[in-house]
Amino acid sequence: MYEDQFDIAGKLSMGPHTLDIPPLLYEMNRKRLVTELQKIQEDSAVVLQGGSNEPIYDTDGSYIFKQESYFLWSFGVIEPDCYGLIDVVSGDSYLFVPQYPVEYAVWNGPLPTLEEFKKKYKVNYINYVDHLSQTIKELNRSVLLTLSGINSDSLLKTKEANFEGLNKFNVEKNILYPIISNLRAIKTNYEIEVMKYVIDISSAAHRHVMRIARAGLYEYQCESEFLHYCYQHGGCRNTSYQSICGSGVNSAIIHYGHAGHPNNSLLKNGMLCLFDMGANYFGYSADITVTFPVGGKFSADQRFIYEAVLMANTSVFRAAKPGVSWVAMHLLANRVLLEQLKKGGLLQGSIDEMVDANLAAVFQPHGIGHLLGLDVHDVGGYLEGHPERLPTPGLKNLRTARKLEQNMIITIEPGCYFIDPILDKALKDFNLSRFIVPNTLKRFRGFGGVRIEDDALVTENGMVSLTKVPRTVEEIEDWMAGKNDHKYGPVSISDFSIER
Amino acid sequence: MYEDQFDIAGKLSMGPHTLDIPPLLYEMNRKRLVTELQKIQEDSAVVLQGGSNEPIYDTDGSYIFKQESYFLWSFGVIEPDCYGLIDVVSGDSYLFVPQYPVEYAVWNGPLPTLEEFKKKYKVNYINYVDHLSQTIKELNRSVLLTLSGINSDSLLKTKEANFEGLNKFNVEKNILYPIISNLRAIKTNYEIEVMKYVIDISSAAHRHVMRIARAGLYEYQCESEFLHYCYQHGGCRNTSYQSICGSGVNSAIIHYGHAGHPNNSLLKNGMLCLFDMGANYFGYSADITVTFPVGGKFSADQRFIYEAVLMANTSVFRAAKPGVSWVAMHLLANRVLLEQLKKGGLLQGSIDEMVDANLAAVFQPHGIGHLLGLDVHDVGGYLEGHPERLPTPGLKNLRTARKLEQNMIITIEPGCYFIDPILDKALKDFNLSRFIVPNTLKRFRGFGGVRIEDDALVTENGMVSLTKVPRTVEEIEDWMAGKNDHKYGPVSISDFSIER
Repeated sequence: MYEDQFDIAGKLSMGPHTLDIPPLLYEMNRKRLVTELQKIQEDSAVVLQGGSNEPIYDTDGSYIFKQESYFLWSFGVIEPDCYGLIDVVSGDSYLFVPQYPVEYAVWNGPLPTLEEFKKKYKVNYINYVDHLSQTIKELNRSVLLTLSGINSDSLLKTKEANFEGLNKFNVEKNILYPIISNLRAIKTNYEIEVMKYVIDISSAAHRHVMRIARAGLYEYQCESEFLHYCYQHGGCRNTSYQSICGSGVNSAIIHYGHAGHPNNSLLKNGMLCLFDMGANYFGYSADITVTFPVGGKFSADQRFIYEAVLMANTSVFRAAKPGVSWVAMHLLANRVLLEQLKKGGLLQGSIDEMVDANLAAVFQPHGIGHLLGLDVHDVGGYLEGHPERLPTPGLKNLRTARKLEQNMIITIEPGCYFIDPILDKALKDFNLSRFIVPNTLKRFRGFGGVRIEDDALVTENGMVSLTKVPRTVEEIEDWMAGKNDHKYGPVSISDFSIER
Repeated sequence: MYEDQFDIAGKLSMGPHTLDIPPLLYEMNRKRLVTELQKIQEDSAVVLQGGSNEPIYDTDGSYIFKQESYFLWSFGVIEPDCYGLIDVVSGDSYLFVPQYPVEYAVWNGPLPTLEEFKKKYKVNYINYVDHLSQTIKELNRSVLLTLSGINSDSLLKTKEANFEGLNKFNVEKNILYPIISNLRAIKTNYEIEVMKYVIDISSAAHRHVMRIARAGLYEYQCESEFLHYCYQHGGCRNTSYQSICGSGVNSAIIHYGHAGHPNNSLLKNGMLCLFDMGANYFGYSADITVTFPVGGKFSADQRFIYEAVLMANTSVFRAAKPGVSWVAMHLLANRVLLEQLKKGGLLQGSIDEMVDANLAAVFQPHGIGHLLGLDVHDVGGYLEGHPERLPTPGLKNLRTARKLEQNMIITIEPGCYFIDPILDKALKDFNLSRFIVPNTLKRFRGFGGVRIEDDALVTENGMVSLTKVPRTVEEIEDWMAGKNDHKYGPVSISDFSIER
């Protein structure tokens, strides 16, 4: 499908044991963008501003640099303070890099020359940032497209390009955002290779952590093992989000691991661990959750809840395919969860009535999954022309209501949590409490929670998991007992390298 | 010296294998601040705003939270979005915490109650942030002191408290900054214990990395080992700055390891490694550089440069004590370095003339060291009433020109680098080139660089190193050969726990 030739010198790589990302990946992305824009506003050019180092308050230290995702998607550039320009008429790409004083090289090493930058990123034209305005002027397109939109997860505004001279151009803010966001939601075959790689490394790191987790360790020591595994073996300097490593009651805290609860509890035998962690490779994100018992053996109650969640997870895998609504998948997972909880004696009554009462949101308050890519909650979830966000509990937290399309990558992450404030509120609401068997629920106070999160690729006819971790109770118990070493295979880069 | 009683429940800790930081540390800091402010503006109160999560562009992800350092110094609070108030008349402390909707607990776990916050942080009064303005009003001091100053390293403005109702008060912006910055520069005995701990963990991690570094590893794999060691053994989730792991020619790039050069070169036998890394424990920073050869054996040239730098380092340790100017220490290190480079045949001519020509800045362009504390380039370096920044090369990069005082912690980090653009420029300048032996210099093109950075405490009569890594050529070669395992002792928390 895609033309496949790239200069090896231009690849993004962390060494031969890691994946090479060719400049062609980004060239493809730009081509797709140009093709779409030509249909709407051919006589135009796109300008994108890359990210900058973010200082830590008033200090001269910065957070570890992260590239802005739209710019990264379009140009694959890892350095800060750049701009990119795409001519929609010709498809030509222009990269503008900062010109630092000579002293820069003393402190930060030689910056690539313009020619080196051009070769590295395979753009058609290269220049310094202070030539941006003049270049746009000379290109002389009637419209300059900038990126302006509201992220539907954060409600924050995109980083719109800004530079001296911008006000001289005929700027159009609204065309670019929905088109590029939608393109980001549908991955190319090249992007899928990178996603497979980062998900594979993250899977291997999770398997490693499942083997070393034991009573007496702190949650953060498991996090540290994960981070080290991904960086050392996979070249992943960053994770895609702050690691959530909850044990015992903490496993019911959906966004555990933040500054106020920094994964600092002690693992004890028999506790459930809910570890939600994912590596990041040149921006591409993995997002995987495993749940397993410290000591390696599920109790009867743990098996009950775990298998209920797993059934919800697998039911989505079986039903999902292009054209299927993600809302339907959320509701399917909910229904299966309710059925299983009823079968296990925690719930009673009619499943249909439970669904009508939205009982599932008591146990699973979050959405069933989200698009995944350069952002961990990837863009494109709510765009014009696609279904809007629904207002009901659970569904209102769904990060997309779209129909699935081939080459979307999306997480499937049903959960079941016993969260006191939600349970207390539900018990006071007869419309919910009538389904709950009170004595059984009592047994689950303080139980924590289970989440099973896979990263899934929508294929032509269905959906496949890219995650490679033990998933059934038996698989987990076997793996933690040291069995099945070769079942998941080594993390082999050759599996993922792009064929020439 | 300090009253020593604290509720164990209120300690900051990452488990019994890590250091307990008592709330008393912060109580002492506030007391010192109040004592100083009472001399100048008794009828006043101080308001400080804590840090917030920093979003990554438009996404709903954030960088790992870092607390704002002035607020952290004063209150020891690890949660975001708080304010602190100190009554200068009574010394009473007030903490204001955010009030989140009930849903917060579902996603982030139970926030401590007001009573729990009060107990945790041992403040006199606790309330929600929306009571801040009313509380200040009721306190009815004639002046409200806010933090307004320019960081002398970044030239960025401090995070000045801002809240609804601020404009109703008689705000004084200029008194607080120099006083609190100066107090931060002089550590209490409690702070010194924490600094010793984080430096000790970082030292142990460096020793570990020196043992595992070998040809065939990538620089970042060494970084990963360091990070893992500090987090797993020391509970240090963050480092104090982005790790600099330069090998070969990269060791001459003073701030290597950034986004454009992410520690992604391969170690090869015989190359020098310059690894500059430091852990962070509840904000307190270590900053240590080791330089050693891959393979564990210094070549004659490596020994020459290394021992020249080490001589500069030890000469500062011998000369430094309270009352000594840091500028004099910089110049001393420079002179010793020049003497050694002359002795080894790289330089020729009169040392005095070399000093007059500022030749040292060709080989060591940065300052000899900087204050260290909650910021890695700690505050207080240039305050009114202390010497101003000097304009000459080398000295202009010195982060303080102050006289040393007891209980300052400062780095001693002479270096010697062979940086092509600097050397090329120097060779064209007769006033510099006349001292350089051209044929010898040729041998050192591409050599890289050496830095030896210790974290040092100014004592009553002198200066001691808190760093515990092998430093002489023989110590390094022995350590890398697997000898002297017990010389540096295990990282023992009992060495650093504060006596009750």
